[in-house]
Amino acid sequence: VNTGDPIDLAAKLRSFDELWSPRIIGEANGQYLKLAKGEGTLEWHSHEHEDEVFLCLEGRLVLELREREVVLEPGQLFIVPKGVEHRPRAEPRASVLLFEPKQTRHLGEGEDPRAVAVEDQPWI
Amino acid sequence: VNTGDPIDLAAKLRSFDELWSPRIIGEANGQYLKLAKGEGTLEWHSHEHEDEVFLCLEGRLVLELREREVVLEPGQLFIVPKGVEHRPRAEPRASVLLFEPKQTRHLGEGEDPRAVAVEDQPWI
Repeated sequence: VNTGDPIDLAAKLRSFDELWSPRIIGEANGQYLKLAKGEGTLEWHSHEHEDEVFLCLEGRLVLELREREVVLEPGQLFIVPKGVEHRPRAEPRASVLLFEPKQTRHLGEGEDPRAVAVEDQPWI
Repeated sequence: VNTGDPIDLAAKLRSFDELWSPRIIGEANGQYLKLAKGEGTLEWHSHEHEDEVFLCLEGRLVLELREREVVLEPGQLFIVPKGVEHRPRAEPRASVLLFEPKQTRHLGEGEDPRAVAVEDQPWI
């Protein structure tokens, strides 16, 4: 069994600059651990079958929901349940750890050109 | 849909003192997010069917494996794959975020009296 190496989140974050483009850093129980960086506002979307865990690591991530906003600063996390529409907004920048099922589509069924196909999300 | 409140990890950690006694802070995709604190060494164990994600938040957590040790400091994570024997050791103390399937037994099939049954792990 290859049990891998420990993963240093800060070092992994330093290894890429692309915005709203998740990187996969690990896999457990059919789910991926991912890192993403953002600036500004992404698209409204939801995931029909997948809950999505967001842990803010740097900056400030606002999760807009249809009836309120959730503000996450470093060390704060939020779980967006499946089916709940949300729009991530970084104020002005944020880095986030995501935990979600492997098949989770980046921006749900939306057509945002920034959406990255699951098979195109690189491991780092 | 109750989408809950944001979860502040530091505040949650301040809310309990018990060692090696996981607290559940969230649920996503059939998995629990948990916080645990430790001092000293726990028991060797493995989980036959579950991978286990450890993210060190405070202190230093050493995951002893049979052939090596993985040292985790704050901001570092490690995934113990299912079936891999491990023994957590806090040097001298550590706080950790865990992500694992709901049915994961605290210390596997081991008989350590410190093992906490899944149904006895409280939400905080």
